[in-house]
Amino acid sequence: MTALTLDENTAARIAQAVDDGFDAQIGFLRDFVAIPSLRFQEGPAQDFVADALRARGYSVDDWTIRLADLESLPGFGPIMGDFSRARSVVGTHHPVEVKGRSLILQGHLDVVPEGPTEMWTHPPFDPVIEDGWMYGRGAGDMKAGTVAAIFALDALARAGVEPAARVHVQSVIEEESTGLGALSTLQRGYRADAAVLPEPSDFTINRAQVGALWFRLRLRGRPVHVAVAGEGSNAILAAHDVIRALQGLEADWNARATQHPVYGDVAHPLNFNAGKISGGDWASSVPAWCDVDCRMGVLPGQDLAEARAEIEACVAAASRDHPFLSNTPPQVIWNGFQAEGYVLGADADPALGVMQSAYARTFETDAPLQERKMTALTDTRFYGLYYGIPAFCIGPRAENIHGFDERVDLQSVRDLTRMLAFFIAEWCGLNPRNQRDAGDGCGVHRLG
Amino acid sequence: MTALTLDENTAARIAQAVDDGFDAQIGFLRDFVAIPSLRFQEGPAQDFVADALRARGYSVDDWTIRLADLESLPGFGPIMGDFSRARSVVGTHHPVEVKGRSLILQGHLDVVPEGPTEMWTHPPFDPVIEDGWMYGRGAGDMKAGTVAAIFALDALARAGVEPAARVHVQSVIEEESTGLGALSTLQRGYRADAAVLPEPSDFTINRAQVGALWFRLRLRGRPVHVAVAGEGSNAILAAHDVIRALQGLEADWNARATQHPVYGDVAHPLNFNAGKISGGDWASSVPAWCDVDCRMGVLPGQDLAEARAEIEACVAAASRDHPFLSNTPPQVIWNGFQAEGYVLGADADPALGVMQSAYARTFETDAPLQERKMTALTDTRFYGLYYGIPAFCIGPRAENIHGFDERVDLQSVRDLTRMLAFFIAEWCGLNPRNQRDAGDGCGVHRLG
Repeated sequence: MTALTLDENTAARIAQAVDDGFDAQIGFLRDFVAIPSLRFQEGPAQDFVADALRARGYSVDDWTIRLADLESLPGFGPIMGDFSRARSVVGTHHPVEVKGRSLILQGHLDVVPEGPTEMWTHPPFDPVIEDGWMYGRGAGDMKAGTVAAIFALDALARAGVEPAARVHVQSVIEEESTGLGALSTLQRGYRADAAVLPEPSDFTINRAQVGALWFRLRLRGRPVHVAVAGEGSNAILAAHDVIRALQGLEADWNARATQHPVYGDVAHPLNFNAGKISGGDWASSVPAWCDVDCRMGVLPGQDLAEARAEIEACVAAASRDHPFLSNTPPQVIWNGFQAEGYVLGADADPALGVMQSAYARTFETDAPLQERKMTALTDTRFYGLYYGIPAFCIGPRAENIHGFDERVDLQSVRDLTRMLAFFIAEWCGLNPRNQRDAGDGCGVHRLG
Repeated sequence: MTALTLDENTAARIAQAVDDGFDAQIGFLRDFVAIPSLRFQEGPAQDFVADALRARGYSVDDWTIRLADLESLPGFGPIMGDFSRARSVVGTHHPVEVKGRSLILQGHLDVVPEGPTEMWTHPPFDPVIEDGWMYGRGAGDMKAGTVAAIFALDALARAGVEPAARVHVQSVIEEESTGLGALSTLQRGYRADAAVLPEPSDFTINRAQVGALWFRLRLRGRPVHVAVAGEGSNAILAAHDVIRALQGLEADWNARATQHPVYGDVAHPLNFNAGKISGGDWASSVPAWCDVDCRMGVLPGQDLAEARAEIEACVAAASRDHPFLSNTPPQVIWNGFQAEGYVLGADADPALGVMQSAYARTFETDAPLQERKMTALTDTRFYGLYYGIPAFCIGPRAENIHGFDERVDLQSVRDLTRMLAFFIAEWCGLNPRNQRDAGDGCGVHRLG
């Protein structure tokens, strides 16, 4: 399927409208990044997005996620923590006349922890712009992308047009831990002919992504006074022995991966990570407990139940002859991502074709969009694997995501905004803004 | 020096008085153990002791410890945490007529953390008595000992006598981490001819004790998204490499210890312990930081400055060729015990002789008191090393101190109370209670 016609004149007006709104867009992004939307604390950031969508006249759906609604759905991952205030926000544009294809634009606003703030050059939640980059936790992953989507729609309006198809701007949480935010929008019934997630990709297409399993190793043992340390067993040291065993499993799986049809040519696609540790209570007590939060990658097509069984068997084997662990083997608690890998199917080709056109127009290039095989994962899997909605990521240039001094290149944000505006125009088609009845408050899109 | 005379008749009355007060003593101990006097939270427990001492008519000194008063004193260890509400409590008995030798009875009420409560058979701060044992964090280490000292004095009063010398009942904090509570009583000027600390020892004498150094290993590095784990460096794994190096140093020091005049015959007297770990923020981020709280034993006579230099050199050597640590070597932060070892000198012989007599009378035995060389440490070092006050520990039978289901044998508590009462009588001498002017409210000791 080819793009709907976007004439040069309209395209020029759209491009100009992006530029005209860009200062406001950067201010909006700065305010958004300044909200520390860490896990289980996303409320104020969702308020910020919902207010912005309401101010533009979209129909806003803002609901509290109920775990009971999601538990039986494919892709569900268990939650450890207080999920009672978890919300999703969707702003919907309803077209006056349908000419094109409907679209989901999804951004997640949950951010990973900032770590020790003394490791940051600038404070993580007080964004600074320097040499064309905006610094801040979440600036790249992925508040800049979400804001680009909102401002791309604004630019269309400013250019006197609006999408001629249904568009859902979806603001979700939990992308970094379970994906339940995206899953909740699908459970709620949001569907479209394509879903674009402007994750930071430096304008590459997320062609394939691994899956991931999260689990906590929970070690418990017998503590003693350090005076008789030899009699006790050190849970912190025992945890390390289990980590080493899991590194062995990681090596096994990567060896197997060399035979994978998609990932066979990717070096070390599967990463095991012992990402967080907490153990013991006192320097002078032999530690009796240790918890390690782990992440293990899985290949597209790898069965998750089998993968979990292999991990549990690996932990059991490491414990069998271990002085500490043999009596009290560690628990493996599945406490987050239970995510399958995902490979973009041919059903995405029409949307990719339109994105190619928008890319060519934005960068005035004939070069094809680059595709990449990710060793991480995104929410696209829910759309693509379980709901038949072609979904992919394309987004700005960012650095140090999940690290200190995370930053996003503001020129790439401007380019992305323009590209998304072109994509929306060609995918959804355009209606003139003046077609809308001025008295129809509900449907009028005001400019932010 | 021999014991002052304690006639059989008075001894029998004292023994009976201990028994008469024992139910109340156990109730008092239970209430005391129920107060979770964890570090930096000792206030309510100090209130409890101060109230009990006031109720008995002792002069009570209850003061807030100022770090500035202590920093230049020998044995000082640095504090990490809020020390602004740290207090010491001393209750003093002033004799009407001095016949014997003055005495410090010191107990610490700080307790080590209880760890995961699900590992306890009974709740750690809701003491249960079962089969003659009282269970609870701090029951053995060392609230039972402190309570025995208070109730030994009560028993004397109930028997119609009181010490014929100055006695200080000293309730201190920080024994488990720096010893600053004991140090503060010495800075405040409390002195005596001997100091007895009824730490749980199953009626052995603390003949010699090691010293200890506390330090935090602080690792900081460059975090990355797990998608590119190979580019980052895992601070949790790097911490383990440093721990292994310090275990090597521990082995070296223990090899040297075989030549030590006192500890040469003790197997593995020096324990290194990695007791608490905290690192990373997110399962899917390669951890950029890790803190490990460590304890290393030192021998009596081992120079602490040299010991610290050896530890720092060991950490530096482990970092030199390390992929993660070579760029950012760990910090070694001295954050607690800077404690020399201590060997009981001949100046303690008179007090030990009197304790031998009290022991013989309590257990109706001719057996000598057993002495032990400790691989842990107590506050005795401050008295003995820096203030010329002979100091030793002797106390009840306890199990699982610093562990789950810590417990103290209540029969041993009864025996200890009787033994301490005999010791006080023979060390301090006795005055009849009726010698005291009934109108002298300040000096009258009421029974608790």
